[in-house]
Amino acid sequence: MHIGIPAEIRGGETRVAATPETVKKFTAKGFHVVLVQSGAGSGASIPDEEYQAAGATIVASAAELYGQSQIVLKVRGPEPGELSMMRKDAVLLGLLSPHQAEGIEILAHHGLTAFAMEKLPRISRAQSMDVLSSQANIAGYKAVLMAANVYQKFFPMLMTAAGTVKAARVLVLGAGVAGLQAIATAKRLGAVIEAFDVRPVAKEQVESLGAKFIEVPLSEEEKAQAETAGGYAREMSDDYKRRQGELVHQRAAAADIIITTALIPGRPAPVLIKEETVRAMKPGSVIVDMAVEAGGNCPLSELDKIVVKHGVHLVGIANLPGLVAADSSALYARNLMNFLNLMLDAKSGEFKVNREDEVISGTLVCTDGEVTGKT
Amino acid sequence: MHIGIPAEIRGGETRVAATPETVKKFTAKGFHVVLVQSGAGSGASIPDEEYQAAGATIVASAAELYGQSQIVLKVRGPEPGELSMMRKDAVLLGLLSPHQAEGIEILAHHGLTAFAMEKLPRISRAQSMDVLSSQANIAGYKAVLMAANVYQKFFPMLMTAAGTVKAARVLVLGAGVAGLQAIATAKRLGAVIEAFDVRPVAKEQVESLGAKFIEVPLSEEEKAQAETAGGYAREMSDDYKRRQGELVHQRAAAADIIITTALIPGRPAPVLIKEETVRAMKPGSVIVDMAVEAGGNCPLSELDKIVVKHGVHLVGIANLPGLVAADSSALYARNLMNFLNLMLDAKSGEFKVNREDEVISGTLVCTDGEVTGKT
Repeated sequence: MHIGIPAEIRGGETRVAATPETVKKFTAKGFHVVLVQSGAGSGASIPDEEYQAAGATIVASAAELYGQSQIVLKVRGPEPGELSMMRKDAVLLGLLSPHQAEGIEILAHHGLTAFAMEKLPRISRAQSMDVLSSQANIAGYKAVLMAANVYQKFFPMLMTAAGTVKAARVLVLGAGVAGLQAIATAKRLGAVIEAFDVRPVAKEQVESLGAKFIEVPLSEEEKAQAETAGGYAREMSDDYKRRQGELVHQRAAAADIIITTALIPGRPAPVLIKEETVRAMKPGSVIVDMAVEAGGNCPLSELDKIVVKHGVHLVGIANLPGLVAADSSALYARNLMNFLNLMLDAKSGEFKVNREDEVISGTLVCTDGEVTGKT
Repeated sequence: MHIGIPAEIRGGETRVAATPETVKKFTAKGFHVVLVQSGAGSGASIPDEEYQAAGATIVASAAELYGQSQIVLKVRGPEPGELSMMRKDAVLLGLLSPHQAEGIEILAHHGLTAFAMEKLPRISRAQSMDVLSSQANIAGYKAVLMAANVYQKFFPMLMTAAGTVKAARVLVLGAGVAGLQAIATAKRLGAVIEAFDVRPVAKEQVESLGAKFIEVPLSEEEKAQAETAGGYAREMSDDYKRRQGELVHQRAAAADIIITTALIPGRPAPVLIKEETVRAMKPGSVIVDMAVEAGGNCPLSELDKIVVKHGVHLVGIANLPGLVAADSSALYARNLMNFLNLMLDAKSGEFKVNREDEVISGTLVCTDGEVTGKT
């Protein structure tokens, strides 16, 4: 197969869907030709020469790349101009925003066989292909680094001849992959951490990282509802939200740094930090709103900006993994390779979509002109 | 006494020379009146109200502040416009750049009794007053945070379902206060660290922080010369520099991050990272040149900019403590208070310059219209 790696054109997207490491593995057996658009790795500090050394063919233009590629590995879904260059029978893997039905219909209409990596089933066998998880991990790390960089005090306690400086108090809202990595990173930096999550099961993970778990008292009924099969948080009742809001308000006022990570797939992000809470925070505090692209966990955060409101710094950078482009590309590229390998015969290199495999069928969004599965 | 805290006007200076904590201590006994210019603390997230609550009187303008202040606590030396507002008999404490003789002569000519905190003798008794040390500590922390924020990979090793990401390799050049804090911070973040210093005595401190000490083999004569009485590094022979250059070149090429901290008081900073070394580094590597204001340890770094050259990110931000304004102000203010207290009678509050005290006389740069001591 001819596997193509275009340069990403979405504003601020620095990642790339293959690295010299994955190129080398694709080309090792001689079954596949990997085409890399010149400059595709520049945002991730990967020069063309490194791709070439790994066995890739560098092509000068996107048109040339898309014209020759039977399989296209991308980070972001194609813009109209990219789609128009793609072969009608191409296979596309990437972050295709499957919750936006219209976009998927356009891909189907073009004739593509497309896999939206966001839809990958969250089962053990698919962990090595889970781009949401790998990118959330990096985002959680980066969120804390940005907070520490904006914050005008030390994260760790500092003992000096001129007296002691207190450790920062960090509050992490949502203890999924991003939240847990945020906790781990803030802990490394010496902060004192509190965290919470609507899923009571998160308590043990939070505590194992050395953070204090904050609990909103739950009714029995709420406990049963709190975790859905996929492991994602789901929306809770209004009464729970009110109690949660009060608790968050109180802990936020005591915090120096807040990292919010609460996302509900395909829905607007829940508001966890209201304006009155921001007002109650200390001057110089920092909020990193990791849900900013879905509307934000704080209504005061602004997309792709760092703003100061009521004396509090609000960091609303959406593409945090893109700011750690080399490692986020490394993990993303491995995830995509692992997924694509499910469909490439190890002996012949032949490409085949086995729709009996739930990992494959769960991720497929369109083929043969039709939208498949629920979006 | 009337002690005045003006707002700093030097570009990018966010620090302030007193905090509510030190104001409270100055005003506690009723001997002193502390005047704070409105907005003086804004860069460090300290509102006027907090100063007021601590016992300060807020004054609206710099003219009013300087007109009433017998003692002025500053971060940066006064600009001409500030000096013209100062009382002829005022006492001034701050970072007055004593190596620039002309500037000190101007202060003397105005009639000030001025203390340049850079000249504080480095003896145990004066440690709690040592602003160079407290600010270097913060600068070393911030240098690593900036490096980690610019770097496109993880600092810590990361083990994920999609494989492992390697820990960053950090090289710290110069193991003074800044270098040691840089090592400690990079270690917290999970990096693998090498460090070196021309003073063989630094080896034990470096190793105690978990970093590897890199040694340039020294002759006996060089060993004796390597440390001066003040604990600062001094200039070494050309032959030593050549051997050092080779070693640095070799270790730099293996590093992902370099933090350079080599300063020689009153002299241009030594060049440790030549252009050919930058060329030999991996794409995406980061150099933080903490000596940029003194000409730089790397000739490619640019003052107050982050630039990319030969694929390497060069961070040349001069005032790193100013980017951690709240804690750098907290420590700076304590340092100044501890020093000023040497000259304020604990029982009467009377101000007296005891020139028999080496801490006081060593720091005094002018009084009664005369420049004192060597500059």
